[in-house]
Amino acid sequence: MASRIRLSPAERREQLLDLGVRLFARRSLDELSVDAMAQEAGISRGLLYHYFGDKLGFREAVVRRAAADLIATTAPPATGEPLERLLHSMTGYLDWVEVNHEGYLSLVRGAASDATLREVYDEARHALTDRIFTSDDTGLLPDTPVVRLLVKAWAAFAEELVLSWVASPGEVTREQVAEMLAGSLPALVGAAEGERLT
Amino acid sequence: MASRIRLSPAERREQLLDLGVRLFARRSLDELSVDAMAQEAGISRGLLYHYFGDKLGFREAVVRRAAADLIATTAPPATGEPLERLLHSMTGYLDWVEVNHEGYLSLVRGAASDATLREVYDEARHALTDRIFTSDDTGLLPDTPVVRLLVKAWAAFAEELVLSWVASPGEVTREQVAEMLAGSLPALVGAAEGERLT
Repeated sequence: MASRIRLSPAERREQLLDLGVRLFARRSLDELSVDAMAQEAGISRGLLYHYFGDKLGFREAVVRRAAADLIATTAPPATGEPLERLLHSMTGYLDWVEVNHEGYLSLVRGAASDATLREVYDEARHALTDRIFTSDDTGLLPDTPVVRLLVKAWAAFAEELVLSWVASPGEVTREQVAEMLAGSLPALVGAAEGERLT
Repeated sequence: MASRIRLSPAERREQLLDLGVRLFARRSLDELSVDAMAQEAGISRGLLYHYFGDKLGFREAVVRRAAADLIATTAPPATGEPLERLLHSMTGYLDWVEVNHEGYLSLVRGAASDATLREVYDEARHALTDRIFTSDDTGLLPDTPVVRLLVKAWAAFAEELVLSWVASPGEVTREQVAEMLAGSLPALVGAAEGERLT
């Protein structure tokens, strides 16, 4: 980061954002301070303010970038069996939360009381769950009000499952978590559809 | 509430707490103020402080009482088919959240950033999920690390399902929500057990 190569303003902004996202992985949002940036990369308060307005502007830019990374990481492959694609997507989710545990936890908690964080969090969650319907060309998930509600609640299930496991894995293996993540959605939909038909 | 009957200090404290819990149902915790109490029942700031120490002490007492009500309301019947008992318990949960929607939502959100609220919230959730294992004499839920983790994540599912539905029921009926709440747990455990055995 201490490179002497002259960067364009856009490149410099990107560089600061990349560093912010790396810090986000291992720290809570409250710790994503100008001081932390200064310590890691000798970046001055003035420079950060120049590019991001203020501390909250920087925090928001980092969180938006992190959320975009999450959405990209969890993109399912374009082809394959629906369950394989779901497993791939949820393994990506598990990977991302493991790497970004501290930051993600602080985003989840912060979203409860901070309107900006809540917006980013809701957008990311909505993108993740909405994609399940748009990428489902198999009819695995009928697009009904019941299934929409179910998928929303399942996203909370997946988040709690991964955050609890990362915090305290105990005797549960990574493979078991990945399989629970992918297997849970079809099981829930199957149960709800069964009830609907009776 | 404006009764002139002389109450013992313990009765008076109970009465204030009951009123607080009723206010909690329809207001967020931030609105559970001394002013609201004064407006509803002509109770003075001094009286409230006398019984509960300060505003936060009163809030904590109200939230603990509300959590105890939730745990009592969702107690499953001692006998019956396991799924019937679970349905009974989850219908109680749905009833309680509907009545106490505003307060419960503010407890869930407040628990993210307030240590005292988090403690009450975690205790209540733990009591609810722990009871599923202790009241299960049927082997419906094997007490394994995987199933413990699953039940913890399922509690987040149930919470999101009910809060989302109460906020915006759309075309989903109350019966569908109750059946999803009760049917989801066996479906999830069945899927996880199936995976474990393969």
